Amino acid sequence: MQTKGQETRSHILQESRRLFTLQGFHNTSISAIIAATGVKKGNLYYHFPSKKELGLAVLIDARHEFFDILEQSMVGDGAAERILYSCNSIMTLMEETDFVGGCLFGNTALEMTDLSSRFGRVIRDVFSHWIRLIQEELEREETATERIKRLSPETMAIAIVAILEGGIMLSRVYQDKKSMEACIRSIEELIRNR
Amino acid sequence: MQTKGQETRSHILQESRRLFTLQGFHNTSISAIIAATGVKKGNLYYHFPSKKELGLAVLIDARHEFFDILEQSMVGDGAAERILYSCNSIMTLMEETDFVGGCLFGNTALEMTDLSSRFGRVIRDVFSHWIRLIQEELEREETATERIKRLSPETMAIAIVAILEGGIMLSRVYQDKKSMEACIRSIEELIRNR
Repeated sequence: MQTKGQETRSHILQESRRLFTLQGFHNTSISAIIAATGVKKGNLYYHFPSKKELGLAVLIDARHEFFDILEQSMVGDGAAERILYSCNSIMTLMEETDFVGGCLFGNTALEMTDLSSRFGRVIRDVFSHWIRLIQEELEREETATERIKRLSPETMAIAIVAILEGGIMLSRVYQDKKSMEACIRSIEELIRNR
Repeated sequence: MQTKGQETRSHILQESRRLFTLQGFHNTSISAIIAATGVKKGNLYYHFPSKKELGLAVLIDARHEFFDILEQSMVGDGAAERILYSCNSIMTLMEETDFVGGCLFGNTALEMTDLSSRFGRVIRDVFSHWIRLIQEELEREETATERIKRLSPETMAIAIVAILEGGIMLSRVYQDKKSMEACIRSIEELIRNR
């Protein structure tokens, strides 16, 4: 069971993540977080001494959750099935919020990477882990397709993550799932043995 | 020849674009723009009555330039060559700034699309035009490959723009061109007649 303090911390992290995803880190003020959580300023600063520390804690918390989602979503027989199932799971997650907000890591990557080395480190870690998981799936595939041999599993894994992130961005821009569906169809085309 | 007023306006647009690309719209203050341009506050507000109007003018100016770049970069024999040449031109542009800042439209898409319908309209226009140009190239191809027939030129065009935007993001995160190169290799794989 969570203590009262742990509950407050979780509550702050959850609401801050929602706000940062929706409107960005710089555009979310501490006052907005206080208003959204109902937590007193002193209590907020007790848990997170600065907005930057809060931002990092949100990213680290989201990273933990995302790694769980990734590992649980690699379901199916063969690399292609597992990777596509995972891509579709991510699309379903994005659809739940009607593509509003998009990907917290992608957003933060564009907003913060150049600015803070600590944010950059967490973001790089998320993308590297994600690319590695897909790469390992492709390497494990017994009947490696000609295409995988030509492209190398790493190259293909980087491209798959890029397509998904680009697809999430475009689905957000157009506020429909057509772009993400087009992206997942292209990933399928890229990895299927034809 | 530009008048003094036009020169000032261009100078403000140029410096603001640099700052918005580097550190985002919300994180760039009017004071920072005044400091970077050396233009007096009253003069800045004479040309752009608010930060939002300035942001929109920067996007519209950049859109104009990007459309020119796109059209000039579709060079070569056949759709595949023209699209790949264009992708490589975009990578070269990104490399010139060592991938710092990334893509202004992608960044603004993630930062502003949900928040302002006027920003959203410009961003959608940029991506729609870009997708349409690639789609038309693929449709014009006389020897349409089996893959293009399976995927539809529109689906493939959406995926190509998504891969590039994702690739720009990853190259920015890792601060090297490896990710973008992997993405362009995968685009090649996707569109070449194999």
